[in-house]
Amino acid sequence: MYALIMAGGSGTRLWPRSKKTRPKQLLDLLSGRTMFQEAYDRVAPLFGDEGIFIVTSGEYVPAMRQQVPAIPAANYIVEPSGRGTAPCIGLAALYLRRADPEGVMCVLTADHYIKNVERFRQVLRAAARVAEDGYLVTLGITPSFPSTGFGYIRRSAPLGTVDGFEVFRVEKFTEKPDAATAQRFCESGIYSWNSGMFIWRVSVILSEFERLMPTLYAQLMEIDAAIGTPEERTVLERVWPQVEKQTIDYGIMERATDVAVIPVDIGWNDVGSWATLLDILPADGDGNVVTGQHLGVDTHGCLIYSPDRLVATVGLEGMVVVDAGDVLLICPRKRAQEVREVVKRLREAGKEEYL
Amino acid sequence: MYALIMAGGSGTRLWPRSKKTRPKQLLDLLSGRTMFQEAYDRVAPLFGDEGIFIVTSGEYVPAMRQQVPAIPAANYIVEPSGRGTAPCIGLAALYLRRADPEGVMCVLTADHYIKNVERFRQVLRAAARVAEDGYLVTLGITPSFPSTGFGYIRRSAPLGTVDGFEVFRVEKFTEKPDAATAQRFCESGIYSWNSGMFIWRVSVILSEFERLMPTLYAQLMEIDAAIGTPEERTVLERVWPQVEKQTIDYGIMERATDVAVIPVDIGWNDVGSWATLLDILPADGDGNVVTGQHLGVDTHGCLIYSPDRLVATVGLEGMVVVDAGDVLLICPRKRAQEVREVVKRLREAGKEEYL
Repeated sequence: MYALIMAGGSGTRLWPRSKKTRPKQLLDLLSGRTMFQEAYDRVAPLFGDEGIFIVTSGEYVPAMRQQVPAIPAANYIVEPSGRGTAPCIGLAALYLRRADPEGVMCVLTADHYIKNVERFRQVLRAAARVAEDGYLVTLGITPSFPSTGFGYIRRSAPLGTVDGFEVFRVEKFTEKPDAATAQRFCESGIYSWNSGMFIWRVSVILSEFERLMPTLYAQLMEIDAAIGTPEERTVLERVWPQVEKQTIDYGIMERATDVAVIPVDIGWNDVGSWATLLDILPADGDGNVVTGQHLGVDTHGCLIYSPDRLVATVGLEGMVVVDAGDVLLICPRKRAQEVREVVKRLREAGKEEYL
Repeated sequence: MYALIMAGGSGTRLWPRSKKTRPKQLLDLLSGRTMFQEAYDRVAPLFGDEGIFIVTSGEYVPAMRQQVPAIPAANYIVEPSGRGTAPCIGLAALYLRRADPEGVMCVLTADHYIKNVERFRQVLRAAARVAEDGYLVTLGITPSFPSTGFGYIRRSAPLGTVDGFEVFRVEKFTEKPDAATAQRFCESGIYSWNSGMFIWRVSVILSEFERLMPTLYAQLMEIDAAIGTPEERTVLERVWPQVEKQTIDYGIMERATDVAVIPVDIGWNDVGSWATLLDILPADGDGNVVTGQHLGVDTHGCLIYSPDRLVATVGLEGMVVVDAGDVLLICPRKRAQEVREVVKRLREAGKEEYL
């Protein structure tokens, strides 16, 4: 049983704290530990340091090695560039197969928040037992509100109960819904959020790549043949740019047959934007989440991140204020997604120093 | 004819740019010149450097001397502490009487914006002619909107025309009105804003102090007796703390009889808060007034002051953002007056380093 922590993203919506050279998984957004360290802390008791693999971008490896020295250097799998979750998982599966062809891999991420870590470990154990029977297992998060920011999973027939967790066959995966649809999904009681966490046998997922994504599979096999040879790096860097970008959801999960979901409530959240941090982090008496010094007059429901400077606010409501030293971001929490647009414009303007 | 520039205020509503050690009149809020330099530029052609007197707090004198070296050091009149405009003007009158007992003094300020400087000089010349006849003259600003932030002056009988300016007897001074009253004032056509600029003979204003504020007058006489002696400073510092705080409006103008107003439109504004700067300064295509670097996504009608740091904003409307290095202020323009409250709380919390 192995953990694969995907930690290659850049997290532009958490700009200006997250930057190209300092992506969100390397930041301590939630606690004194970085999100990558927290991802490690969550699974280390279950998998041991040797059983945790990381797939990421080469430029982030030195910082990650420094943040979590316990994970062996050999357990880092470097993607030459981000091609979506399907190629990422496929590449990692090649390395895991060499370690243990019949092993179960738990695909996890470094940019999620999980409140109930003990229950998370329990469900991973249960999921691994289901995966041993050949299922592609996904963790389905019990919706806490009708979010339009996540994909949903609709369950069908129950497959039984494992370690106290009910397991269902998946009827379908759906894209992010509109508000009315999300409302309907939540009321139905048969939808879960798609957490992006998957548990399966290495051999099973590779078979599914061969069956459902044959082009990618052929490219993976070309890379596989070079692993352990002096050409490994050269081949990877030649093949990778030709790999089509694709998500595992679209490429495999939506088209596979033996897919199971385990609905679970673990206090999960995708730390996707500054607005999420307002939901997750403890607020003061005025509903403000503050890091640093803040003097608020009639200020409520704001996220204030300013470790070095006093922030004084008058009459602010639901606002995000992030001081990252050389740059300051101010935006209403409801528009936190649009921070992407700022990053895009800076890129277009060639202001690399801020990215 | 002499100018007396009152420049002792601290301007807490322009915090955090204005601080105790760096009051707003010493800041370049409007142009490359500081407000004090602009006040000097406006009147220097009319009065000459020797004819300009400054009344201020001792701690500001070194910076002012540096900013406008042309004004003789002897023309600085130092108030030991701020006691309101009545004692301030009374003290200055003592020194001006020594220079020229029959002179006319123009009481001006260093924290106002005047767009039409040429017309301002013309009206001062006309006002001085009216003052020579013994009137207490005040400049009444033609209201450009029904402001609730200024006091108003109601005119009565016309006194004639001087240099093309109509002069009226003042019927009464009124406090800052509510919105409905302000609307009525503006529609009536017989109200002006009280600019706080006054023109009168030194001998006349001192007589009025004697008649209407006898206690203050006695204290001024005690100080006057010591001027030019080795005890000057000692006496001033002994008497001054006993002087009651009072404005010239309440202490003299509202109760004097021969008061004249010259209504004039000189593009005047009291630079009282960050909101005023949004009204005065040129805005970009999105209605934003920007000093420094700003990247705005759907951002309109904001004042962004950040000389050292990039400010990125998404979806902001009518907001004031001021980065003063060690401290950052964010507040809606409509609540810019409440910056006072921030300063008050910092003072109460003993955070002198920010004040």
